[in-house]
Amino acid sequence: MKKITLIVAVASCFAAFSANAQVKEDFVPSTTVQSGKKFPAVNSERCVRVQVTAPDAQSVKLDIGSVKYDLTKGENGVWTGESAPQDEGFHYYHIIVDGATIPDPTALYYYGSGHWTSGVEVPAYDDDFYAVKNVPQGQVREMFYWSESCKSMLRCFVYTPEEYEYNLSKRYPVLYIQHGGGENEYGWASQGKVAQIMDNLIAEGKALPFIVVMACSDVPAPQAERPAGRPAGGFSMANFGAAYDKVLVDELIPTIDKTFRTIKDSDHRAMAGLSMGGMITKMVTLKHPDVFSNIGIFSGGTITVADADRTPGFRETNKVVFVGFGSRELENRVPGFGDGTDPKEETEDVKASGVNAHFYVSPGTAHEWLTWRRCLYQFAQLLFK
Amino acid sequence: MKKITLIVAVASCFAAFSANAQVKEDFVPSTTVQSGKKFPAVNSERCVRVQVTAPDAQSVKLDIGSVKYDLTKGENGVWTGESAPQDEGFHYYHIIVDGATIPDPTALYYYGSGHWTSGVEVPAYDDDFYAVKNVPQGQVREMFYWSESCKSMLRCFVYTPEEYEYNLSKRYPVLYIQHGGGENEYGWASQGKVAQIMDNLIAEGKALPFIVVMACSDVPAPQAERPAGRPAGGFSMANFGAAYDKVLVDELIPTIDKTFRTIKDSDHRAMAGLSMGGMITKMVTLKHPDVFSNIGIFSGGTITVADADRTPGFRETNKVVFVGFGSRELENRVPGFGDGTDPKEETEDVKASGVNAHFYVSPGTAHEWLTWRRCLYQFAQLLFK
Repeated sequence: MKKITLIVAVASCFAAFSANAQVKEDFVPSTTVQSGKKFPAVNSERCVRVQVTAPDAQSVKLDIGSVKYDLTKGENGVWTGESAPQDEGFHYYHIIVDGATIPDPTALYYYGSGHWTSGVEVPAYDDDFYAVKNVPQGQVREMFYWSESCKSMLRCFVYTPEEYEYNLSKRYPVLYIQHGGGENEYGWASQGKVAQIMDNLIAEGKALPFIVVMACSDVPAPQAERPAGRPAGGFSMANFGAAYDKVLVDELIPTIDKTFRTIKDSDHRAMAGLSMGGMITKMVTLKHPDVFSNIGIFSGGTITVADADRTPGFRETNKVVFVGFGSRELENRVPGFGDGTDPKEETEDVKASGVNAHFYVSPGTAHEWLTWRRCLYQFAQLLFK
Repeated sequence: MKKITLIVAVASCFAAFSANAQVKEDFVPSTTVQSGKKFPAVNSERCVRVQVTAPDAQSVKLDIGSVKYDLTKGENGVWTGESAPQDEGFHYYHIIVDGATIPDPTALYYYGSGHWTSGVEVPAYDDDFYAVKNVPQGQVREMFYWSESCKSMLRCFVYTPEEYEYNLSKRYPVLYIQHGGGENEYGWASQGKVAQIMDNLIAEGKALPFIVVMACSDVPAPQAERPAGRPAGGFSMANFGAAYDKVLVDELIPTIDKTFRTIKDSDHRAMAGLSMGGMITKMVTLKHPDVFSNIGIFSGGTITVADADRTPGFRETNKVVFVGFGSRELENRVPGFGDGTDPKEETEDVKASGVNAHFYVSPGTAHEWLTWRRCLYQFAQLLFK
């Protein structure tokens, strides 16, 4: 039975090959395939191939990087097809079966664009820094905490370094790190590879051991305060930042400081975030320079000289400002992007004004997770030293 | 009598879905909907309704409980339909769009039947015991460990009770708990609600605080030993039990005992599992009575008098045997089920022979997760006292 299935699969692959002869046939299953599955697969030209069994469908498409690619129907209703070359790194994608947008049935699922969908890893030249390796292993801990302002239990994830388990008298700094718009508290540990990046950095002596807290900024408004028609949770600009500021500063930080062996001062507390999470990071850290002395903004803006000057206490308390972007984000900048200025210049200016500021560009990546993994990799090495 | 009840129930199910005009319109989104989504939903008759947008599809079905239900196309290509009444508790299900078996795009995903698929919670009369409540919160920790026999890093999840964070001189007993066939290490923390069951039991003083380890028994064979055509990982009877026995006893337990503050003797170590995991539990614990003194078998067989008699050391070391089933599993038993004998009688016999054996029946549930949540709830109260 298994052999027959295999032969059929191979036969249908050949059918697909002939239909798209110019694609290089050296596809390898992505690290995001489900156990025992073969697709999505990626070839040496960084094309992504998917395969979906849909015997009665009229049309099956792969939707990746804002482009839809038609799949070709082979024997036994197995549809196969591939994308144009993608950037290195992680990409969300969908399958469209007769107009139904669905996650790929054989891929692992990730939360992005406000729902659980499929992801594919295109191998990167530097993917060793976020690989699972046989080095001392930290942990990613799922826990719930009571939010009085939301009147509900909220989930967060907490990375603790390996030595946290046995250095029982030692206390640790904490980085609070935020996902982007349409994402949630799962993003950084899953797509973001926080544990692997931290474990590998610590094993190489490049970063100090610290705790990383991953919570969802899209907190549910209490029923009474919820705008009509807006469901609890879900991405919404209605509670962009302000509601989470309260949860983070008044509820989550005290919970973390009570639960974990943290160092409870601003010098040993950092906040970072990607895209919308970077904007929230800017908003929260400039509001509370007494709470966070270390700031990372990944594809989400900058800290300007004006920001530093108009924030009482900022210049006295801040230890690090890190600003990062993907190179393709900067290439594709058009007038009006952000506040219309150059983030590199802004960062150089704020550095010249006395702030310990760093600007980083991730080569060959756009507004996607490889940019942000690399930002964390860089930022973590600057922290708490 | 019970069989008649079952037949009547089945008959009323058919009535419900052949003429679904009389479906009671009091559907409420299940706890397994994605953030901000409305389906799957469940009504007071325990029917499950789904809704899928598939404008160009010819046919959309809901596949739940081994029955396929046709959905009806409404305006804007939105298909809606519902199942017959389901048992209380958690059920896996699929959507079928023009022959493509897919997870429901608006539900949360769970690993079962060898892939990630959709799940729905039908509210149970006793669902308070596995609800997230504002009680002291333990943690579920994801970590990787090196398996020398598999030559790879393997993932496991570890529940630690709330007090583990601050009772730093205290050591804890450990329960190793196994998923069923086609499931993996995610099952017990996700579908199984281990953290909520333990947190609530501990908060009520009904269970002692202990650690729970959740690992995948379907360990990857090293490349050299892998049967031709068998992919790494994935459900396979080829490595049912034996390969995992080695990983568990020689690799995982030493890792856990090194990483966590455990009590490292058999009295304070338990193993339990559901279905295939129960069979593996029986195999491993009878092979190693010096390693595990506490045994839980959920819908996966029993420990018989013959088992106890032929296992050197068993009667001297064993502290607890717990055997549990869903009531519908026992109702539906046919000659030849398991070894053809009555699990209740077997458990009573082994108890009469001097073993501290317990038999439990989960009311109104079949071979599904509510049975196993209830088994854990019962078993945990017997442990390490």
